[in-house]
Amino acid sequence: MSTAEDLLQTLRQQKNSSQTLNDKPNELLSNFQRIRQQSLKLCHELEIEDFELQADAFVSPIKWHLAHTSWFFETFVLKSTPDYQVFHPQFEYLFNSYYNAVGKQFPRDKRGLMSRPTVQEVKAYRQYIDQRLNKLLFDPDTLTQEQSDLIILGLNHEQQHQELMLTDLKYNLSFNPLYPIYAKAKFPLEQAPDNNQNSAIEPLRFIEFGGGIYNFGHKGVGFSFDNETPRHPFLIQDFRIAHRLITNQEYCDFIDAGGYQDPQYWLADGWAWVQQNKVTGPLYWQLESEANDSVNVQSETKNNNKPQRYEFRLTGYGQLHPQQPVTHVSFYEADAYARWAGKRLPSEYEWEVVCKKREIVGTFVDAQSFHPLQLATHQASEENEPNNSKNEVKQLFGDCWQWTQSSYAPYPGFKTPAGAVGEYNGKFMCNQMVLRGGSCVTPKDHLRTTYRNFFYPQDRWQFTGIRLAEDV
Amino acid sequence: MSTAEDLLQTLRQQKNSSQTLNDKPNELLSNFQRIRQQSLKLCHELEIEDFELQADAFVSPIKWHLAHTSWFFETFVLKSTPDYQVFHPQFEYLFNSYYNAVGKQFPRDKRGLMSRPTVQEVKAYRQYIDQRLNKLLFDPDTLTQEQSDLIILGLNHEQQHQELMLTDLKYNLSFNPLYPIYAKAKFPLEQAPDNNQNSAIEPLRFIEFGGGIYNFGHKGVGFSFDNETPRHPFLIQDFRIAHRLITNQEYCDFIDAGGYQDPQYWLADGWAWVQQNKVTGPLYWQLESEANDSVNVQSETKNNNKPQRYEFRLTGYGQLHPQQPVTHVSFYEADAYARWAGKRLPSEYEWEVVCKKREIVGTFVDAQSFHPLQLATHQASEENEPNNSKNEVKQLFGDCWQWTQSSYAPYPGFKTPAGAVGEYNGKFMCNQMVLRGGSCVTPKDHLRTTYRNFFYPQDRWQFTGIRLAEDV
Amino acid sequence: MSTAEDLLQTLRQQKNSSQTLNDKPNELLSNFQRIRQQSLKLCHELEIEDFELQADAFVSPIKWHLAHTSWFFETFVLKSTPDYQVFHPQFEYLFNSYYNAVGKQFPRDKRGLMSRPTVQEVKAYRQYIDQRLNKLLFDPDTLTQEQSDLIILGLNHEQQHQELMLTDLKYNLSFNPLYPIYAKAKFPLEQAPDNNQNSAIEPLRFIEFGGGIYNFGHKGVGFSFDNETPRHPFLIQDFRIAHRLITNQEYCDFIDAGGYQDPQYWLADGWAWVQQNKVTGPLYWQLESEANDSVNVQSETKNNNKPQRYEFRLTGYGQLHPQQPVTHVSFYEADAYARWAGKRLPSEYEWEVVCKKREIVGTFVDAQSFHPLQLATHQASEENEPNNSKNEVKQLFGDCWQWTQSSYAPYPGFKTPAGAVGEYNGKFMCNQMVLRGGSCVTPKDHLRTTYRNFFYPQDRWQFTGIRLAEDV
Amino acid sequence: MSTAEDLLQTLRQQKNSSQTLNDKPNELLSNFQRIRQQSLKLCHELEIEDFELQADAFVSPIKWHLAHTSWFFETFVLKSTPDYQVFHPQFEYLFNSYYNAVGKQFPRDKRGLMSRPTVQEVKAYRQYIDQRLNKLLFDPDTLTQEQSDLIILGLNHEQQHQELMLTDLKYNLSFNPLYPIYAKAKFPLEQAPDNNQNSAIEPLRFIEFGGGIYNFGHKGVGFSFDNETPRHPFLIQDFRIAHRLITNQEYCDFIDAGGYQDPQYWLADGWAWVQQNKVTGPLYWQLESEANDSVNVQSETKNNNKPQRYEFRLTGYGQLHPQQPVTHVSFYEADAYARWAGKRLPSEYEWEVVCKKREIVGTFVDAQSFHPLQLATHQASEENEPNNSKNEVKQLFGDCWQWTQSSYAPYPGFKTPAGAVGEYNGKFMCNQMVLRGGSCVTPKDHLRTTYRNFFYPQDRWQFTGIRLAEDV
Repeated sequence: MSTAEDLLQTLRQQKNSSQTLNDKPNELLSNFQRIRQQSLKLCHELEIEDFELQADAFVSPIKWHLAHTSWFFETFVLKSTPDYQVFHPQFEYLFNSYYNAVGKQFPRDKRGLMSRPTVQEVKAYRQYIDQRLNKLLFDPDTLTQEQSDLIILGLNHEQQHQELMLTDLKYNLSFNPLYPIYAKAKFPLEQAPDNNQNSAIEPLRFIEFGGGIYNFGHKGVGFSFDNETPRHPFLIQDFRIAHRLITNQEYCDFIDAGGYQDPQYWLADGWAWVQQNKVTGPLYWQLESEANDSVNVQSETKNNNKPQRYEFRLTGYGQLHPQQPVTHVSFYEADAYARWAGKRLPSEYEWEVVCKKREIVGTFVDAQSFHPLQLATHQASEENEPNNSKNEVKQLFGDCWQWTQSSYAPYPGFKTPAGAVGEYNGKFMCNQMVLRGGSCVTPKDHLRTTYRNFFYPQDRWQFTGIRLAEDV
Repeated sequence: MSTAEDLLQTLRQQKNSSQTLNDKPNELLSNFQRIRQQSLKLCHELEIEDFELQADAFVSPIKWHLAHTSWFFETFVLKSTPDYQVFHPQFEYLFNSYYNAVGKQFPRDKRGLMSRPTVQEVKAYRQYIDQRLNKLLFDPDTLTQEQSDLIILGLNHEQQHQELMLTDLKYNLSFNPLYPIYAKAKFPLEQAPDNNQNSAIEPLRFIEFGGGIYNFGHKGVGFSFDNETPRHPFLIQDFRIAHRLITNQEYCDFIDAGGYQDPQYWLADGWAWVQQNKVTGPLYWQLESEANDSVNVQSETKNNNKPQRYEFRLTGYGQLHPQQPVTHVSFYEADAYARWAGKRLPSEYEWEVVCKKREIVGTFVDAQSFHPLQLATHQASEENEPNNSKNEVKQLFGDCWQWTQSSYAPYPGFKTPAGAVGEYNGKFMCNQMVLRGGSCVTPKDHLRTTYRNFFYPQDRWQFTGIRLAEDV
Repeated sequence: MSTAEDLLQTLRQQKNSSQTLNDKPNELLSNFQRIRQQSLKLCHELEIEDFELQADAFVSPIKWHLAHTSWFFETFVLKSTPDYQVFHPQFEYLFNSYYNAVGKQFPRDKRGLMSRPTVQEVKAYRQYIDQRLNKLLFDPDTLTQEQSDLIILGLNHEQQHQELMLTDLKYNLSFNPLYPIYAKAKFPLEQAPDNNQNSAIEPLRFIEFGGGIYNFGHKGVGFSFDNETPRHPFLIQDFRIAHRLITNQEYCDFIDAGGYQDPQYWLADGWAWVQQNKVTGPLYWQLESEANDSVNVQSETKNNNKPQRYEFRLTGYGQLHPQQPVTHVSFYEADAYARWAGKRLPSEYEWEVVCKKREIVGTFVDAQSFHPLQLATHQASEENEPNNSKNEVKQLFGDCWQWTQSSYAPYPGFKTPAGAVGEYNGKFMCNQMVLRGGSCVTPKDHLRTTYRNFFYPQDRWQFTGIRLAEDV
Repeated sequence: MSTAEDLLQTLRQQKNSSQTLNDKPNELLSNFQRIRQQSLKLCHELEIEDFELQADAFVSPIKWHLAHTSWFFETFVLKSTPDYQVFHPQFEYLFNSYYNAVGKQFPRDKRGLMSRPTVQEVKAYRQYIDQRLNKLLFDPDTLTQEQSDLIILGLNHEQQHQELMLTDLKYNLSFNPLYPIYAKAKFPLEQAPDNNQNSAIEPLRFIEFGGGIYNFGHKGVGFSFDNETPRHPFLIQDFRIAHRLITNQEYCDFIDAGGYQDPQYWLADGWAWVQQNKVTGPLYWQLESEANDSVNVQSETKNNNKPQRYEFRLTGYGQLHPQQPVTHVSFYEADAYARWAGKRLPSEYEWEVVCKKREIVGTFVDAQSFHPLQLATHQASEENEPNNSKNEVKQLFGDCWQWTQSSYAPYPGFKTPAGAVGEYNGKFMCNQMVLRGGSCVTPKDHLRTTYRNFFYPQDRWQFTGIRLAEDV
């Protein structure tokens, strides 16, 4: 199949680095089994009804994610193996996301209307695919380099959808006034928010980094997406970056100062977005008065007359925790906050300079908090880590994706790969902004310091947060 | 609770006729049990995923129907009984359809996003309500006239939702290119469509009725909805009415003659509707070329080169049956067809004159065809019936609701009842058209000859068909 | 030309009554000249820029009205005369309103984008048409009956557009915060609104009329539109009707009682319309706080602390006059007011019974008030009129079109005429409501007691008002 | 007034370079008079009706441009002079474009509904402003540096609106099927298009430029907009750039090769834009079959059976000229064309390197062609110019704005100026793409080599064209 061949050729040219993985076929097999199992584990506690939800065109039902990630392996790996029988002739149409080169796609905004195949049937589809891939991976002699590369791509693809499963689910559940709980909070309300609020968080510090010409992008050892290449030199100027993320309390100060009513802090498109959508705070936030008398509300004793803010979390609906990083903000909100604070957002180049030689530690999906954690909590679990000094930039990884001021564009010399896999990243390089660092629902071994995530400036349903920067 | 009291007062004034039922409390109990069971029977074969579908704001998920019909009994009957504990405090909000006097309603277009309560939990809700109502009905001494009246209203309400469950489900399933089958066709393709097509159906005849002043509306024996009252005299002129419904074949002739391309046959709003929605035929119809290679297609050998038309039925996707009544047409289409044929639609008064003293027989949901049947089939099952003479108007009841030219308006002297139940019918008396006769998914014992159904002129997802009339 | 022939045939059959006019060709000529001149007189004071305005698809620029009414004579009369040269080949496309049988139409919502032809060129077009029609009318020997009938139709058509010119202009000018004045008020603020407010207006009385079978529709003497035919008997019941229109003050009471916040008074579609459009009062009304510091505001001394209501009139922006009839209300608002008042709207049949044998007197465009007048003013000018007794129903004609509860439907036996002229009325007989009585911008000699006006229930830009009725 | 003071402070800091102009107050006066006159000259031939057109929210009526540019001088210069009387108290609201710091704005999409003030009144407003500014400029002793800076800004602002007047007018007139002509073409059809088509245009060549660190942005001599600052070093790599713009013929090849039907050439957002808007070619292009029989069509003899393409120009409707630069393409189309051709668009940095030390020559509004010209024509008028060698990049300036691959972002170190004037550029630095080089409707003395124009990727109503580049 020519689509798969194009893809292979591309991968061969770009990622000859993934040989190491293929040299250890057992590792690839165990990774395959682990990552495929993880997708199912994430929805282990859900009701069948939950798998079907699609509240908007930009989110997908859990069931669709489970099927689509299998479709990826079927389409790009299995279909070119001898004697392969497709599981169902219509699935190519139903579970293709956006690969025009593969064929037509079932309309994105109608994915929630697909009651058949059922959840059970989709799980059978996964098993069918897994059996054939296990067989392929069990026999290192017949596994080609191309197949190995494609399987590694498929696993990274599946990890991206694991993150989307959780953010889409959160969005979908948020429309239910019963506030369903995805998972119980491990740390009950993350160490009591109203206890010594003011003392608990370090004041924001700005740490300086020197400008100059640095190399950026993926070095070529191990897997990366095409948008992280080619590695290239870039000139940046001196800058300072905030040592931690902005907290809910700091963001509340912006709201209480009338930030959402004053156009001077907003980009023109951002202001139009605020007006049209009557935005008054981050996604999932509510003033107390809007909250229903729901059985699932985790409420605290009120200690003053100020209206309390509440938010919907994957761990349930409850009072806002002032020292947790603010999350579910759009680029427009992050940018407006930065202007109000007299700062700016970092560029993606600045961000990458900051994390050079840094080990990737932080609150990822593996921690099962399913929500960004306050720095204190975070530090407690990190105290023996090498980066944890006074001058260190914290919360670089995990917790929240950090909006940068960089629009998502090709690196110099980037070429869209030929074939269907060329549609993976390149065609989205317009109108979107780069985010860096991963979040509390990203798998830890999925992230790299060169990793470029990207969303539209108005998007808020990912765990997105704010890190400030400033000129020297 | 004052809402329920208002309702009771209204019912007391209007429907003192329902005493007969109350005199036989055991009959009411058995009706209650039978009708409540029927709602569950209708979705016995469905997958849990199917209960959740909502493809548009004007349809609701099966699960919602099951809960809402229980909410009706809880709100209007049980809440005013002593010591009643509501099943769940949020259900009043979640399952109120449009009763502003009861309180706020969960947004109609978001009903499909309610994965919780689950199907299982909604069934438990039904059981909870049923137990309490059974107890109430078992003891005739304590059952008040008011309660009896409200329960009868609730059962008629539930039967209306049984019809909607099937039409909504059909609409929701139709978006799935796998064409799920709700129920297997009892009569395989209804006696082979392409076998002696032309001989099988009687040519359309027009039967004359004399004008004059007649009485219209409900006589006052047994239950009726408020919109069928008050009974009143009305003057009509001589008219002629078609002896049967228009068939698919006859409607295809209209299409093939360019009916959808010629504005002269259309009301101005109808023509705008055709243009904006690019309508080219009844809902659920497709030209062969549009059909997917689905596993569920019931196809026939083609006997000529003409493109075959297909349709989606509750019994599966397959070739159009030329002699079945055309169905799923809007008022605009029914009206355009009539103009093209040089005729008009009957008024609701004319229709009611035609069925005076007629027994209610026809293809209802009880026949489990879940689709209108051709007249031949229909007659076979009717041959011993009193109305089946040469001069008889056929297919008056069942098969398809028949669009009339009458806009839905209050009968002279009609007053909207006070309280929540006043919202049942009166507030919809604008912009809609009256339909008469019931359909293949109406419960037979739900219909009356004075029954007034009503939908917007563009609505097509009910089993709506065409009966012609003309002036003398 | 077949279109014109169809039209003629229709007119010949229906309106053999118009012979009288043709017998007096000089009268037709003078009517022609007078009515055509009147269109220009109505826009005599306007700036060229004003002729171009189109604020919404449902209104048209003044210039377009001037051209379209000429196009009507060109298309239906002149094109079938020998050797006629069209003024411009594109005008058939540009100035056809909705006659599909004539050909395609320039998109309705783009009429305001037609800067060419200029106002001057359109006036030249009018002159061109007038010259040729004058010539035709000067020579009674060659003028056929058909031509005469078509010209009479064209003049009635032009009068309808004269009314639309003023209502469209009012709507278009209302978007300008400078509040342009179309014409200075003749009676300065109509006899000082805040002077003895309560004593000046008679309390509302209801006058009873007996039911029975009456004949309705046009009798056949003189011109009528097709929708007033055929004359037919109809049975109505006893009823009572209000002796005058509802005033601004009375309508303010409804608003102040929370009428726009309480769904119990509203039809379901009306309530949805109120919610979606955030309607809080009649079109053109503002609370004082919303008014700009405009140079054109006609303000009064405030005599209390209550917020004053203002409205935009063709005679300028100023304080609301409490005793003038409320106007620019939708059917939904008229119906909601009636429910709140414990009454209902009359049917069009009841209305027609009330004005049997009544002479047509009232505030028409000829009075040049360009706004409905309070009853006192009105009576003063009527004191010698035959109908002005205590038991008389007042303000039947002129001032405001009166919403009826009758949906716009064909009279029994009505057939849409063949050809283009058949599109004049018949194709709109769906989704609209009948209004009766004419308004302050209707030409007096245009109205008949059988005249049926019709608009959508949400339409408000005509001078529409409220007359109540009730059952006996 | 604090707004003006903020503005002044900003300008003082940034543009101390404009002193030279102030040293020559007579030059500023003559520039003021010349540029203000030019705005009126551009609409000298228009009808009053043409001044009112607004076909979409993103264009404005000519009249509005004339008023708004005067409002700019009134608001930022005159209002802070002693004893200044505003011309009309409402004009601040009516003619503020988007300066939130100044106050509320009349809704942008309703500007075409402002029939008053009339064109005559707006011209009087201009005269009023001009008289006061002339007086200010006549007296060099009292003119402050701040005033001088603001006036220079106002003149550059007015020149931007002069360009918009022509592009907006073209867009507005294009909706009229009469195809009004703004100005007669000076060169009749630009040297006969179908005469030796293939020989007339040089094949596209790519000229190489070396990478390295260059300085970019405005040097600080003379006026510039804030978005051209601060001047800063930037590292670019070796690249090649096309020696001329892409022609209509070349773009037709892309269309004929199915470019608009093949998603592989398009960015994801671009493909969605093509599908939603059914785009099949540049704005204002039509296939012959779509053209009306208009009196204004400039048609040629057809020399073959191929369907001819037509376009609407400011000089009239007529056949497409194959060798003129393609224009009115979106960024999406420019990008898709480049991919199809195996190339890419240049970055704004590359473009700026190419024109270092280049003199600004080209087809600007001063040439009165009002349309981009073919290179041959262009060269003829340039033959004595210094840049006209074989290795020279041509059509760098004038003809068409050239889309770059650079999203519009702040230069490193850019700070949004305080006050109202800070809204001039900075708040638009999101979601837009940079264009360079000016167009056939740009005033020549308005352009700089560092000039950054910016529009949304879907915008097409400017004279936008395509220059290709490639990596080495």
